Amino acid sequence: MTTDFAALKRIALTVRMLSVDAIEKANSGHPGLPLGAADFATVLWANFLRFNPRDPSWAGRDRFILSAGHGCMLWYSLLHLFGYDLPMSQLQSFRQWDSKTPGHPEFGMTPGIETTTGPLGQGFANGVGMAISAKMLAERYSKELFASRVFGLVSDGDLMEGVAAEAASLAGHLGLNNLVYLYDDNHISLAGETKICFTESVPKRFESYGWFVQSVDGHDMQAVQQALTKATAESDRPSIICCRTTLGFGSPNKANTHDVHGAPLGAEELKATKRNLGWPEDKSFFIPDDVSKACANLLETKVAAYRKWQEQFSAWEKSDPTKASGLKLQLTRTLPASLKQNLLNAFTDGKKDATRNLSGKAIQVIAKEVPYFVGGSADLEPSTKTQIKDSPEIQKNSFSGKNFRFGVREHAMGSIVNGLAYSQCWFPYSATFLVFSDYMRPPMRVAAISHLQSLFIYTHDSFWVGEDGPTHEPIEHVMSLRAIPNMYVYRPADGMEVAMSYYAALSRKDRPATLIFTRQNVTPLERPSGFNPDSIMRGAYVVAGAECSDLAIVATGSEVGLACDAAKLLKAKGVSARVVSMPCMELFREQDASYREQVLPARARKVSIEAGITLGWERMVGANGLCIGLDHYGASAPGELIAEKFGFTPNAVAEKILRFSTGK
Amino acid sequence: MTTDFAALKRIALTVRMLSVDAIEKANSGHPGLPLGAADFATVLWANFLRFNPRDPSWAGRDRFILSAGHGCMLWYSLLHLFGYDLPMSQLQSFRQWDSKTPGHPEFGMTPGIETTTGPLGQGFANGVGMAISAKMLAERYSKELFASRVFGLVSDGDLMEGVAAEAASLAGHLGLNNLVYLYDDNHISLAGETKICFTESVPKRFESYGWFVQSVDGHDMQAVQQALTKATAESDRPSIICCRTTLGFGSPNKANTHDVHGAPLGAEELKATKRNLGWPEDKSFFIPDDVSKACANLLETKVAAYRKWQEQFSAWEKSDPTKASGLKLQLTRTLPASLKQNLLNAFTDGKKDATRNLSGKAIQVIAKEVPYFVGGSADLEPSTKTQIKDSPEIQKNSFSGKNFRFGVREHAMGSIVNGLAYSQCWFPYSATFLVFSDYMRPPMRVAAISHLQSLFIYTHDSFWVGEDGPTHEPIEHVMSLRAIPNMYVYRPADGMEVAMSYYAALSRKDRPATLIFTRQNVTPLERPSGFNPDSIMRGAYVVAGAECSDLAIVATGSEVGLACDAAKLLKAKGVSARVVSMPCMELFREQDASYREQVLPARARKVSIEAGITLGWERMVGANGLCIGLDHYGASAPGELIAEKFGFTPNAVAEKILRFSTGK
Repeated sequence: MTTDFAALKRIALTVRMLSVDAIEKANSGHPGLPLGAADFATVLWANFLRFNPRDPSWAGRDRFILSAGHGCMLWYSLLHLFGYDLPMSQLQSFRQWDSKTPGHPEFGMTPGIETTTGPLGQGFANGVGMAISAKMLAERYSKELFASRVFGLVSDGDLMEGVAAEAASLAGHLGLNNLVYLYDDNHISLAGETKICFTESVPKRFESYGWFVQSVDGHDMQAVQQALTKATAESDRPSIICCRTTLGFGSPNKANTHDVHGAPLGAEELKATKRNLGWPEDKSFFIPDDVSKACANLLETKVAAYRKWQEQFSAWEKSDPTKASGLKLQLTRTLPASLKQNLLNAFTDGKKDATRNLSGKAIQVIAKEVPYFVGGSADLEPSTKTQIKDSPEIQKNSFSGKNFRFGVREHAMGSIVNGLAYSQCWFPYSATFLVFSDYMRPPMRVAAISHLQSLFIYTHDSFWVGEDGPTHEPIEHVMSLRAIPNMYVYRPADGMEVAMSYYAALSRKDRPATLIFTRQNVTPLERPSGFNPDSIMRGAYVVAGAECSDLAIVATGSEVGLACDAAKLLKAKGVSARVVSMPCMELFREQDASYREQVLPARARKVSIEAGITLGWERMVGANGLCIGLDHYGASAPGELIAEKFGFTPNAVAEKILRFSTGK
Repeated sequence: MTTDFAALKRIALTVRMLSVDAIEKANSGHPGLPLGAADFATVLWANFLRFNPRDPSWAGRDRFILSAGHGCMLWYSLLHLFGYDLPMSQLQSFRQWDSKTPGHPEFGMTPGIETTTGPLGQGFANGVGMAISAKMLAERYSKELFASRVFGLVSDGDLMEGVAAEAASLAGHLGLNNLVYLYDDNHISLAGETKICFTESVPKRFESYGWFVQSVDGHDMQAVQQALTKATAESDRPSIICCRTTLGFGSPNKANTHDVHGAPLGAEELKATKRNLGWPEDKSFFIPDDVSKACANLLETKVAAYRKWQEQFSAWEKSDPTKASGLKLQLTRTLPASLKQNLLNAFTDGKKDATRNLSGKAIQVIAKEVPYFVGGSADLEPSTKTQIKDSPEIQKNSFSGKNFRFGVREHAMGSIVNGLAYSQCWFPYSATFLVFSDYMRPPMRVAAISHLQSLFIYTHDSFWVGEDGPTHEPIEHVMSLRAIPNMYVYRPADGMEVAMSYYAALSRKDRPATLIFTRQNVTPLERPSGFNPDSIMRGAYVVAGAECSDLAIVATGSEVGLACDAAKLLKAKGVSARVVSMPCMELFREQDASYREQVLPARARKVSIEAGITLGWERMVGANGLCIGLDHYGASAPGELIAEKFGFTPNAVAEKILRFSTGK
């Protein structure tokens, strides 16, 4: 650990200058944070953060998160100076088309970028998931090898967000001593001084959550170093170090004002800032030799630590080959070849059941075969049926289990699951009622942007919830989740579809999945003999009436059985209809035109049935099709009665289709 | 204030018994909370809460909120006992079709129910909005008449939710001493003991926010009374009284377990509970005479206070007729007749501008004419352009202004705006970037269910955001907001549409509105001579090419100008196309069939253009129409360049339409 703070100050100054030069060149960006936070961030990167730029995905590395993603030039500058594959040309194309330096950090795009941030509070909560991941790996494999820490830079904006509050409370509860956040406490937010809306005592709040709280001058490197030393020595609690800084440090006319938050300094002020900080005014994107050298020296220490870890790892591999091969499977998220069949085998009893229970059954099968399948619910295990049997809960000092207790914290749950997914070695799932997916859209979107394999499980998926009433009855949710690009939404109709939906979701490693289940019982579908369950993974398939290509009823989830019943009634009245089950609209749209035509022929008149809004179903049935759905809120009453009132009975549906098919 | 706690205990016991009887009869519901919280709730209702059941919307009343809405039988029982128009037959039809006693409280359905709750945390934040509303009325009209308080019952689930944390921080900042929450601290949540996930120090947390915190035994009525006395005497801070209670109090076998949270006691346990609490086992829905009498006595005091207030009010009306007539207008949310024309007059300069700026202009016009138009943003005023000029900020001890500083707390912002809307005397608005509407869906949905006139303003509405990149570029948002039933989504194309969208949103008092604006400049549309701006309020209208009924291009917001430009290019190539602007899909769907046919003829081949997902547009253009949109995430680069890359230029669009119209 270097105590040559003069050298570190030079690095910090270079970080500042690279950042403001890049922002100036882009004519867009946020100079305030890099200028303000460079000092403490440099101490962290130089002396604490363990990484090897030549192996950015090193499993033993520490993680850095910039929760205040708008300050990303800070991160890009550090990545460049510390040897990541992010050349100067990339800093020079900050915020430009096709660069690796987008306006907010994007996971998967830039080497060394661990999380997609920008939407405030997300990074804070992701870090909690990552810290849990490290603890879980440590307990499963080796406490020495996986003594990883998560360091994060968080802003006032992050701390105002509810998702951070939820995550902080849980982090305190779990005693995540491997989580260390540096709070860039600069008293300025986008619109003005924080005192106009944010006067709580942050230290006291974090103490109330059970965190170890320290406060320092964020420009005093020695103080920061001491605080980080204490934080990393803490055995019991997550840490927050409140670093008092000056936003836009060094800018003579804009520092400490919100003008420096989100707009370039401007040519004049940029010069003035350089002058003020003792930097050559005429140089842009300049790295002094002493700084290059200092960074190279620091890097040597880091790479030496990396090598040592690799040696320890090799020794461990030899000493415990079983665990080591388990780890290898985990780090590649390998699915056992037996999984699909074992999933299918679990659903052959032909009994009526709620798909939430069938999901629970699938979860047990997966958990037995895939040790890195972990998750939990937002205080709803008894209802969502998502608890993994024979595995302990994840609790303070106890991370060997698979079951999370997220509490009534849906938003943080989603973001923590993303944190696990960023770690790229889990199949992590969350669970709650579908109607509360509204609380989780921000992390669901980030998962979709970032190609994270987060699994979002939702139960109680329609008005069939019944007595709990409109606030608990999803109407718009299934379709509005389908609206999220890259999000694959599964709403299976019975056990076989549940099995294959989970299998599909686990198989697609480059995207999140939403899995949607009923509270009420459904009857297993009667499929044509010789049916191949793989058809389910094509997103839609013909359940019955393949011979009819005039009239097709397409339905999802609990409405597939309803469609089958209605088709039988129609048959009795001399009208043939085909029934198509569509457990995943996104997968169906990926199929080739001939398969799509085979399932939903262009010439057929088409009907959709889904217990939710009809908007979007025109895509499948055309403007002249019939969309049976619910374009208003539900009601509080027994589900069967609501179904009758809302026309979700075989008779009512058959009658509507009859009128439609005969044009009356 | 009565100190006959024996009588109050009898009332509380009756509340308990009515609640569990109703839940038993419904065979559905949550007995744990009413059994646990009846003691402190009774003290509150008997001795503190000011109301008159014969005039439930009395402007001078206190408000009660049950943030833990699942415990609503507590509220219904209290309403019944305290003389509201909620007869025993309603308690007996709890959770049944068409009853006034749904499974969670629904605003507008039941006399005395002040808020729709169930989604946890919402009520907590609504109360903050209601308390601010009372303070604003007090400062505008009369501190004596509007010394209203907001009392709420909040649960561990509420306190775990991030939205409550955001709202609590803001309430402390604003020093809302008229806000008093009773925390039903029963150590049990749905899935188990709270200690498995919720071990923070709640008192310390609320102290950190600047609240006055007290802790009492929630079954000790005298202690509760003392705490409430202190809380209501507090001059500077909001209050939380942590009431330690036993969930399911009185149930011999289920009290203090999560079994009593969300399922009926069952016949045996119900009997055992009655026996245990000294209640006649054989009686259901029973109200002893002494309890009726005690409630009637308490009511007399309340009604006397009401009469006194009415007298004071009459005197005030006479002494200050100007203010009094202003109040009358405010309480009916009257719009001045001049508003529409003045809004339109503001947009005649024909200059290019961003619709966010045009929205800012409209806001100034409205604020001048409508004194009860108030709102603010989540730390984004400089970007959303939503600050009302010449009006101070709402701050501690200063509630005369119209501008809110919500901080980076989108979720609480939405719920606080709903709190103002529940008060039924404001046009309250929130504002942030459209992409962050994801953080606000829960309150947006509650607003839509509850017919609240909340106005949700969003700017930066597409990839045109540019450099900030995918996390800040809305793609799915416009359509997924349209998915919310009762939500009217406006995306105006120019100044005239901005004016009429605001006017439409203000005119529809029974529903919320979402108003969506660009960051980038748009050009005012060239409309046919004699165009009547009222057409805009029909949701869609023909902008150009009325003579062409073969090919129609329908677009919204910034894409209407693009459609017009493309139509001109098409014209030059000999293809005529009509351009339809559709600022509000919901309003258009309300029009009669002949108007819809007039605007979008069935025979026309149709194209939609919107800088967002195409899902849902098939509703307007049919399955064989052409949907021009963006079904993937955006990018970080200058907006103009992204537009080119993504094909949102007149040339690219014209070419696509040409290919489509010629079937190539």
